[in-house]
Amino acid sequence: MGPVLTPHCERRVRQIRSSNFHSFLPPPDYQRGKMTDTPPSTTTTTDPIHTEDENNSNQEIVSAVSSSDNHISTIVIIIAMQTEALPLVDTFKLTEDRNSPFPKGTPWVRYYGSYKGLSVNILWPGKDAALGVDSVGTVSASLVTYAAIQALHPDLVINAGTSGGFKAKGACIGDVYVASEVAFHDRRIPIPVFDLYGVGVRQGFSTPNLLKELNLKVGKLSTGDSLDMTPLDEASIVANDATVKDMEGAAVAYVADLLKVPAIFVKAVTDIIDGDKPTSEEFLQNLTAVTVALDKTVARVVDYISGKSISEL
Amino acid sequence: MGPVLTPHCERRVRQIRSSNFHSFLPPPDYQRGKMTDTPPSTTTTTDPIHTEDENNSNQEIVSAVSSSDNHISTIVIIIAMQTEALPLVDTFKLTEDRNSPFPKGTPWVRYYGSYKGLSVNILWPGKDAALGVDSVGTVSASLVTYAAIQALHPDLVINAGTSGGFKAKGACIGDVYVASEVAFHDRRIPIPVFDLYGVGVRQGFSTPNLLKELNLKVGKLSTGDSLDMTPLDEASIVANDATVKDMEGAAVAYVADLLKVPAIFVKAVTDIIDGDKPTSEEFLQNLTAVTVALDKTVARVVDYISGKSISEL
Repeated sequence: MGPVLTPHCERRVRQIRSSNFHSFLPPPDYQRGKMTDTPPSTTTTTDPIHTEDENNSNQEIVSAVSSSDNHISTIVIIIAMQTEALPLVDTFKLTEDRNSPFPKGTPWVRYYGSYKGLSVNILWPGKDAALGVDSVGTVSASLVTYAAIQALHPDLVINAGTSGGFKAKGACIGDVYVASEVAFHDRRIPIPVFDLYGVGVRQGFSTPNLLKELNLKVGKLSTGDSLDMTPLDEASIVANDATVKDMEGAAVAYVADLLKVPAIFVKAVTDIIDGDKPTSEEFLQNLTAVTVALDKTVARVVDYISGKSISEL
Repeated sequence: MGPVLTPHCERRVRQIRSSNFHSFLPPPDYQRGKMTDTPPSTTTTTDPIHTEDENNSNQEIVSAVSSSDNHISTIVIIIAMQTEALPLVDTFKLTEDRNSPFPKGTPWVRYYGSYKGLSVNILWPGKDAALGVDSVGTVSASLVTYAAIQALHPDLVINAGTSGGFKAKGACIGDVYVASEVAFHDRRIPIPVFDLYGVGVRQGFSTPNLLKELNLKVGKLSTGDSLDMTPLDEASIVANDATVKDMEGAAVAYVADLLKVPAIFVKAVTDIIDGDKPTSEEFLQNLTAVTVALDKTVARVVDYISGKSISEL
């Protein structure tokens, strides 16, 4: 038996399956280490945060973009997978930072550029050096978020990516949610107060005008380091009242909260967790197509942010 | 029915229960924020890494201790819980760093001092600002390890702490293990190669002379963000061939590996996971007493390290 889909979801799935998503794919050589061979033609290559003396790759970099007018000037977009990141790199005409502000040995990649008056930085944790796969999960996400905030001093962090969705909460494939709240579902510490620390509930930064103007869906996000879901994970996800499930959000939220940077979470649904298809199969089948929906929404969010202050969101 | 203990384990449990461990406990006011009121009388307060101009708390700090003789000069000891850290702070006569090299907002605490020719730094992730409990788990551990390596440039990282042990693998309460290998048991990503990334097996730095000289037990360590253990966790722990289970080790190993710093893992057993007592009850019952055993072993390890090069360990 196939999953029971609402008419809204059936339309969405047809759109996803029929979308000509290949036009959004990067060319085959559009990969880390080859990007300067085929840069986007209109790339903005000036970067206000890079100084003349770049010899010390671990230097403290201070944003040269003035925030004196209270407009948002610098944003950091954390994206865990290259497949999710590259279409947005293209949309914003960003360039890979060849003088990375991060320590030698870290695989973290920064794409940067100016877009509609904003200094836009996409941070991808990169490929695992030994295994060659995207550095997904909470440990990598927390590290790259920390290092990016320290180096770039953003006014706003956006964590964008794909996620699983719960049809019992109204989610269907291709939907894009903004998280009202994030929490962990796989950190069970059954000691008073430590239990709350493990769950680590945090609010997404409140953006009522953005949500209304862009007519975005809102739901709670639950984070864990596994793609699958055990019965105990499921119980925690239900307790977290989550509509979408990812592998990074609550870790990004933790770091942004530590360093007092507003953070918002934009998550596109690649697979229905409470359906009857295996998550990993559905995830891989829909990843590229759903990335198109994610890309469009993140671009709309950034367009909306342009020229506004944090308090106007 | 009580757990079946080997004669070795029975002796160990009697020792732990009868030990006069209170002499190792810090005085009641020996807490963060009060340490300068009651510093250890022989504390070494000069710190080679602090310069005169301390105004920029985010500054890049470069170790002033020369490594030209190849002797290990600076070590960073990552300890997740205050109860585990403070006895060692006392043993090494360390002082809390009031000019923390870490960003404002982070709860991370550095204790530092000179001990037998070594610059010794104990890094404790501190109390969660909202909840007041120790910032345990992989996200905090990875962040504080990253920040400490960046700020202090240690020659060696030691992750010390308490752990659960498996009696089926010979562990009993109070045993202290050095990890030959570390891996995660709660990051299941059932996609080829991503599955290996999730498990994240890494070798502990090889220290054959240290192990032989100090007659230390050796076992594999498995890390997860929960204090309990689900059947799937257990299957992963068995696949990891683990003798001890903690909540930080594999994350510390990941960061140390990224930044190419040798890391060793010293784990003392507070609870028997394959026994019949609930882990959290046994953990709390034995935490303070077992910390004494951990303290003694870490002190022996640091004594052994003193005056040696990395290749002599």
